[in-house]
Amino acid sequence: MVKISLDVMGGDFGPEVVIPGAAKALERHPDITFVLFGRHDECEALLARYPTLKERSVFHNCDVAIAMDEKPSQALRRGRNVSSMWQAIAAVKTGDADVAVSAGNTGALMAMAKFCLRTMPNIERPAIAGIWPTLKGESIVLDIGATIGADAKQLLSFAVMGGAMARALFEIERPTIGLLNVGVEEIKGQEEVREAGRLLREANIDSLHYSGFVEGDDLGKGTVDVVVTEGFTGNIALKAAEGTAKQIASYLRAAMSRSLLSRIGYLFAKGAFDALREKMDPRKVNGGVFLGLNGIVIKSHGGTDAEGFAAAIEVGYDMVRNGLTKKIENDLKLYHDLFPSNAGPEAA
Amino acid sequence: MVKISLDVMGGDFGPEVVIPGAAKALERHPDITFVLFGRHDECEALLARYPTLKERSVFHNCDVAIAMDEKPSQALRRGRNVSSMWQAIAAVKTGDADVAVSAGNTGALMAMAKFCLRTMPNIERPAIAGIWPTLKGESIVLDIGATIGADAKQLLSFAVMGGAMARALFEIERPTIGLLNVGVEEIKGQEEVREAGRLLREANIDSLHYSGFVEGDDLGKGTVDVVVTEGFTGNIALKAAEGTAKQIASYLRAAMSRSLLSRIGYLFAKGAFDALREKMDPRKVNGGVFLGLNGIVIKSHGGTDAEGFAAAIEVGYDMVRNGLTKKIENDLKLYHDLFPSNAGPEAA
Repeated sequence: MVKISLDVMGGDFGPEVVIPGAAKALERHPDITFVLFGRHDECEALLARYPTLKERSVFHNCDVAIAMDEKPSQALRRGRNVSSMWQAIAAVKTGDADVAVSAGNTGALMAMAKFCLRTMPNIERPAIAGIWPTLKGESIVLDIGATIGADAKQLLSFAVMGGAMARALFEIERPTIGLLNVGVEEIKGQEEVREAGRLLREANIDSLHYSGFVEGDDLGKGTVDVVVTEGFTGNIALKAAEGTAKQIASYLRAAMSRSLLSRIGYLFAKGAFDALREKMDPRKVNGGVFLGLNGIVIKSHGGTDAEGFAAAIEVGYDMVRNGLTKKIENDLKLYHDLFPSNAGPEAA
Repeated sequence: MVKISLDVMGGDFGPEVVIPGAAKALERHPDITFVLFGRHDECEALLARYPTLKERSVFHNCDVAIAMDEKPSQALRRGRNVSSMWQAIAAVKTGDADVAVSAGNTGALMAMAKFCLRTMPNIERPAIAGIWPTLKGESIVLDIGATIGADAKQLLSFAVMGGAMARALFEIERPTIGLLNVGVEEIKGQEEVREAGRLLREANIDSLHYSGFVEGDDLGKGTVDVVVTEGFTGNIALKAAEGTAKQIASYLRAAMSRSLLSRIGYLFAKGAFDALREKMDPRKVNGGVFLGLNGIVIKSHGGTDAEGFAAAIEVGYDMVRNGLTKKIENDLKLYHDLFPSNAGPEAA
């Protein structure tokens, strides 16, 4: 059984998406039980439409919902203890849930998750890991937005955490890891990235295979299982790729409707286009994983639909089933001498 | 008449691509004259095949060619004064050419260009500007690889230079400028980017319209005419987008050949696919422009073909015809109090 807590009020559509999304995930994974946090009056009627979900979940009323544009500091002030977002996270802390999922605003979610769950020993800053569709399948990319800048030791900690996530998600023993850089030569790039490369090579960590530097176009190729970078670059690379995919989809739509012949061609090739759409479906890889906290929190895209939210739940489900937190803890313990020691929970 | 110097030995294919590329550009712009630098024995027979080009160009023999994997420092030591790359750049300095074009290695080309042409007054570091295809047309993105990190004043100088290039290339009076960041809110992102935003807003520069922060997905949307970022992020964003485009093209090919029906559909829609391919053709936007030097140097992709090299030549041609260097000089003079003063040619 996997226990999942949901911030039902999070995201652009709140309960409208979260509740049907949970129902979909439950259909595919009947061993899930949910702990739901939201405004009772906004959820009751919706929940009644999904009797199986209702039966497999406990609902807690929370009057406060965090807005999508609320500043993290304000969200924390206003929403600590009382908001659906906070309570979903707190359920992971108390053990009422194995993982929390929210489509709410990223900054607020990260601030609350750090405050409530605290960072793991030897982790200075948590990261958000995303799943990147590649020509070979999928890769993990981190950090995609929790940090701005990272020193060599932080990049090293991202590598260890990303490696543990790859083992949990892809079930491979020794995932390959690359550092995102502007060239593959040793002499190129940011000082911190080169230093992280040196540390990774010297550390020779059993649980991961360091493959050197990778470039922006290696992301789509799937050159390595895990791509490590700091959050500013990672976020911009992710959005640049998403933007390009949308741009090409728009060109393709325009091209296919430009003449009678192309519209006929489209009809013949409709199966192919459906397969392509399926392949490019951003909902399928929805779910950023917060790494480096004492508990797992999954961030869903705020604008996703029920199918996308179900995918985010399933990422959390996989992480729990494959013991992600334990794997990271073990690696951090094993290689603790590589990391800066932090001062315990206060360092969070 | 536009005088263009070419490093004939540069790129993965050297004369095989550069000479036919020059011939193509000349066909479309008969007012070009070329100054060619390369190994006589490797170029003679090829050049003889293009009599118009031969007639409109002066050939200078250079025995030294810079290798694609040569380190900038080594290239400079070995190739200064004597290499085809150096001499193509030097022709801009002496006035024998208005612009130099090379498909040779970027690091060496930038090192030589800085050493030979020197940076403009008030410019600490040159940038490479790329032309990014967008849903609205084209945008300019800089820096895409000359710098690693940039402070607020450097970002400001990129904005002024990119703005001048937009005026030269797109012939608009007051191009819109955005700073690449991880969020559009004032409080987000790197300190330097926020500071640059403050400076740009306060400076209120006549020749450009500062639109605030833009995110990675605004690149493909064409939200602004000019996107400013430092070279590490710019290079990774560019390559991530290129990688995504290749990835989707590969999905599309696979989808179109998966069944008899989809292959028939492809035949019907062939015109549409050709239009799409044309739209996505990376050769059409080939040509990184070095900005901030006392002279224009264009970097072509090393692996491009004759059509792509011709496009790079045409970017140079447009820059000269529209008085890019003069436009940048004027703006820098007008807003010189915004920039750090540098110590003259030694600061290059």
